Amino acid sequence: MPELRQDPVTETWVVIATERAKRPSDFKRPAEQRKGTEACPFCYGHEAMTPPEIMAYRPSGGRNEPGWTVRVVPNKFPALAIEEHPAGVNLGNDFYHLQAGYGAHEVIIESPEHDSDLATHSAEQTRAILQALRDRFSDLRGDKNLRYIQIFKNHGATAGASLEHPHFQLVATPVIPPVITRELDGALRYYEETGECIYCNLIKREFLDGERLVCENQDFVAFCPYSSRSPFELWILPRQHHSDFDALSERQIEVLASLLKETFTRFLGSLENPPFNLILHTAPLDLEAGEYYHWHLELIPRLTIFAGFELGTGIYINPTPPETAAQFLKVSLSEIH
Amino acid sequence: MPELRQDPVTETWVVIATERAKRPSDFKRPAEQRKGTEACPFCYGHEAMTPPEIMAYRPSGGRNEPGWTVRVVPNKFPALAIEEHPAGVNLGNDFYHLQAGYGAHEVIIESPEHDSDLATHSAEQTRAILQALRDRFSDLRGDKNLRYIQIFKNHGATAGASLEHPHFQLVATPVIPPVITRELDGALRYYEETGECIYCNLIKREFLDGERLVCENQDFVAFCPYSSRSPFELWILPRQHHSDFDALSERQIEVLASLLKETFTRFLGSLENPPFNLILHTAPLDLEAGEYYHWHLELIPRLTIFAGFELGTGIYINPTPPETAAQFLKVSLSEIH
Repeated sequence: MPELRQDPVTETWVVIATERAKRPSDFKRPAEQRKGTEACPFCYGHEAMTPPEIMAYRPSGGRNEPGWTVRVVPNKFPALAIEEHPAGVNLGNDFYHLQAGYGAHEVIIESPEHDSDLATHSAEQTRAILQALRDRFSDLRGDKNLRYIQIFKNHGATAGASLEHPHFQLVATPVIPPVITRELDGALRYYEETGECIYCNLIKREFLDGERLVCENQDFVAFCPYSSRSPFELWILPRQHHSDFDALSERQIEVLASLLKETFTRFLGSLENPPFNLILHTAPLDLEAGEYYHWHLELIPRLTIFAGFELGTGIYINPTPPETAAQFLKVSLSEIH
Repeated sequence: MPELRQDPVTETWVVIATERAKRPSDFKRPAEQRKGTEACPFCYGHEAMTPPEIMAYRPSGGRNEPGWTVRVVPNKFPALAIEEHPAGVNLGNDFYHLQAGYGAHEVIIESPEHDSDLATHSAEQTRAILQALRDRFSDLRGDKNLRYIQIFKNHGATAGASLEHPHFQLVATPVIPPVITRELDGALRYYEETGECIYCNLIKREFLDGERLVCENQDFVAFCPYSSRSPFELWILPRQHHSDFDALSERQIEVLASLLKETFTRFLGSLENPPFNLILHTAPLDLEAGEYYHWHLELIPRLTIFAGFELGTGIYINPTPPETAAQFLKVSLSEIH
C-alpha cells in the first residue's frame, strides 16, 4: 500500500511509493567524471584564482598563500552582495515588491585535499570546518540588515556542485526564507499547544521507535526522518534543545565532528558516493525562537529527480521507506570496512 | 545589483542574480540520447506494454489496439492508487500521521507520434489532448475521497521524464498540496483586502508593463513571471477569471491549443528543446475558491540545478531576468522559421 506520511512540523505530506520500491543497489549510477586538481581554484598554490580570503586557519604561510587548513573566500559569482542600497526597502511598485539583493555569499573550503570529504577528513579537520562555519555565522550576526544565514553544501554535479573540491557555502539573506518560516510556524504552534519543543519530542519518538535511527553519540543523533522526501534522507539533531547553531561549544563541535564522520562514512560508503545537499536549519538572527525552535542538519541525497509533481504540489514521492534506508545504513558499516 | 523579487501571491522571494547573468546561449547543452520507438510502450502496436487503457479517442481500432489519437492508461508504477483503505483516516499514531495512499495516477499519451511535441502537434491534436485532460479531470471529480488533481508534464530526462514519447501525467490526491494551499492563502488574503482576484490584476499589470509578455490571443496570455524561479519560466493564464480548469469550453480549448502551439514553438525552438516541467494549477475539488482563485499553467525549464540553497530556503536563484527572457522568446520566432 502506498503511504502518505505527514511531517509533524510543517504538516506537508510525502508519498512513500511502495509500488516503486527500490533497493539501495537500484540507485547505483556511473561515477561522475572528475575534473582533477590542475584548474581547481581551491587547491594549494591556486589562491589567486579566488577573490581575496575573508579568513583562514593557517599553521603557516601568509594571506592568500598555501599553508592553510580551512579557507573562507567570497563566492566569485555571488547570489547576494553587500551593496550601498539599503536592505528591506521596496524598490519595486505597489504590486510587485523588489529589494536590493543585500547579503553575503561565502565559500568555506573544507581542506587543502582535493579528494577528501566528510567521511575521510580527520576528526581534527572536520572540527576546524565546523569552527569556521560557526565563526563566520557569529561574525555576520553583527550585521543588522541580515535576517538569516543559510549554510549548505552541494556534493556532486547532480546536486549542483560546480566545483568538486569539498566546500560549504554560506548565503546571508535580508529576508527569512519561507522553508524556515514554515518550520517556525509549526514549531510555535506545537509549543503553544504543549509547552514543549516539537523537535525534542521527535528525538524521543525516534529513540522509542528505534527503527529509523542510524547512529548517535552523547550529544547528537542521526536518523532517517519519518516523512523522508528522498531515499536515504538523514537528519542530524543536537539531543539537547538549542535554537541557534552558533551557540555550539568547543566540546560540542568535537562531538558533532565525530558523529558527522560516522554518518558520512556510512552514507557515502554504502551508497557509493551519491550526490547530496547538506543543509543547516537554524533560527533567524532577529527572532526570539529560543524556546521552540531546534537547530539541525538535513542531508538530502539526490537519487531521485524532483519533477513536475514535486514542483507543482510540494509533495515528494519517495520510493524507499526510511525504515528500510536506516536499516541499510546501520548494517552496512561493517561491510564497508 | 542582484535583486530580491517577491511573488505577489505566495510572498516568497527569488534572487535575480545579475552577477551570474547568463545569455540564452549559455544554456545550450548536449542533446539527450534518444531511446527510439522499438521498446516504447506508448507507440502503436505496443498497447499491451501498458496496463489496459482507461479511455482513448480512436477513429479506428478496438480497445488496446492501434488506431487511437490520444490514449489514457494507468501509470504502471503508480505513486497513489485506489485502495480499500479509506482516505483521510490516520493509520499512524498521535505524533506521526499516516494515511493510505489513496488516489489515482494516470498517463495521457499525447499522440501516436513518438517524436512530436507541443510545438509540432497539429492544432487538432493539441485540442484532443486538452479535451482528454479535461475529461479525465471531470471524471475523477466524482470521487469524494479526492481533494486535488495534479496534471503535469515532464519533458527530458533532466526534468524527470523516464519515457521520451510525449505524455502528460495526472495524479489525484486525497490531500490539498501545500503549494496550492499557499497560493489559495495569498489569493484569499488579497481578495479579502481588495474584493478582486490577484491573478486578474496580475494580468492587467503584465499588459500594462508589457516587457514580460511573450504572446497572447483573445482568451489566453503567456508571459515570464516577475519573480521567475528559473530562466525562461513561463506562465499561461486564461484572461477571463475562472478557478477551475475543467470548466474550459470547447471553444476555449481550441483557443488554448493555439496559444500552446505558439508558446512551445518559441520556447522549444529558441532554447533548443530544453528539459522542462509543465504544471497545471487549479482549485481543489472540495473548496469554494471560485471568487478568488484563477487556474493557470506554469512552465518551468530545468536549465539550472535546484541545489542546497533552494532546498534549504525555498528561495530560487535565477541568473536570467524575466524581462531578458521574454524579449528573447518574443523576437526569436522569426529566426526559427
